[in-house]
Amino acid sequence: MENSKIGQHISAQFNKEIEDIRNKVLTMGGLVEQQLELAMQSFSTGDIEMAELVIKQDNQVDALEVEIDRECTQILALRQPAAFDLRLLLTVIKVINELEIVGDLAERIAKLAIQSADSDGRIDQYYEIQHMANLVKDMLHRALDAFARMSIEDVPAITGLDDNVDREYSSIIRQLITHMMEDPRNITRTLNVLWTVRAMERIGDHACYICEHLIYMVKGEAVRHLSREEMAKKVKGG
Amino acid sequence: MENSKIGQHISAQFNKEIEDIRNKVLTMGGLVEQQLELAMQSFSTGDIEMAELVIKQDNQVDALEVEIDRECTQILALRQPAAFDLRLLLTVIKVINELEIVGDLAERIAKLAIQSADSDGRIDQYYEIQHMANLVKDMLHRALDAFARMSIEDVPAITGLDDNVDREYSSIIRQLITHMMEDPRNITRTLNVLWTVRAMERIGDHACYICEHLIYMVKGEAVRHLSREEMAKKVKGG
Repeated sequence: MENSKIGQHISAQFNKEIEDIRNKVLTMGGLVEQQLELAMQSFSTGDIEMAELVIKQDNQVDALEVEIDRECTQILALRQPAAFDLRLLLTVIKVINELEIVGDLAERIAKLAIQSADSDGRIDQYYEIQHMANLVKDMLHRALDAFARMSIEDVPAITGLDDNVDREYSSIIRQLITHMMEDPRNITRTLNVLWTVRAMERIGDHACYICEHLIYMVKGEAVRHLSREEMAKKVKGG
Repeated sequence: MENSKIGQHISAQFNKEIEDIRNKVLTMGGLVEQQLELAMQSFSTGDIEMAELVIKQDNQVDALEVEIDRECTQILALRQPAAFDLRLLLTVIKVINELEIVGDLAERIAKLAIQSADSDGRIDQYYEIQHMANLVKDMLHRALDAFARMSIEDVPAITGLDDNVDREYSSIIRQLITHMMEDPRNITRTLNVLWTVRAMERIGDHACYICEHLIYMVKGEAVRHLSREEMAKKVKGG
């Protein structure tokens, strides 16, 4: 576990600052996970109050991003860290950006849920969409867990899930198109579902980006544009 | 013009490094602008070769992002800059991330153009879409120009354009929905147009994000989640 690296800093105060930032990132991650959970629930149930809570929570998420970003910059300016510590801080800045985007996407899903709440009738793809949502939530949770443990061993499994997400996404989109063709009166309502599914697919991508940032932090190498196989090799190799 | 700040560094070598990074960001920006231009042309004309060029160019854009990011990190580690220089480097890391995303969105438009190339018939909203594309291209160009001059005076005008983009986006989406309802055989083809318009709308957002990063660089304050009016005040005020 690379976690031990945190204990190796010369200054106890610096340790404390890093630990504080890590905890704030995990708080932010927990908030975003909750946003996603509530957004998907409001999508399924049409619960407008719940959707409004997601939108409200986004202010907290945004405020945390600004706060953590500022703290990272201050540490960079005052402590001038190098090597792993520098990469850790740069990674935090990138990870919180991904989390902020996931929060925005959850907010988008909540807004679509509000728009759809007054439309009658349900769509047929709920089971598939719920399954896809569970996959995406799992990816995000495990990516945050990997960040918490500062370990990348789970990364290939997490990014591998994105292939399943993409497959389910394509299948759902095809079904939604058929649904629209069969009855054009469904189009506006079905488009809201389509935007929701698209937002979920993008959340899966951002969970992968978090993993890529973690590999950079641990290994010191950018893997953003490598193939899945090349990335897995990096994780295992030296 | 804040450009003079670049001349104030104690080390001539450091100056050179910063200037080199700035030039690379502008090269990357030029490539992304070209991608967007060609992607929109391939969307209008159905020119598959042009669309394939956009997809190919994305590798160059990705490689430049990795290279510039690495150089910024090296300078942070070796020079341990503070104040404006630190903000400049952190801003570059964020700006190239926005550019990389814009490149991905241009690639997405090119892929949609290839998918649509063999469908017969044209859609009626080309004029509006071209107009929206021109707005978005203008926003991106002016954001890069503001970065090149390290000046934020044009920022309120640039971000103001995004309101026009959002208005045109909503209007086009409404027209496309009507189009699908009138003839369900149009749905698959029209959805490709809808995804294209959505990608353009997001490019406008990322041009705004570049502007927000510039304000942070020049003023040292995060403005990401402020309203347009509050942001304009920050640009003018001290």
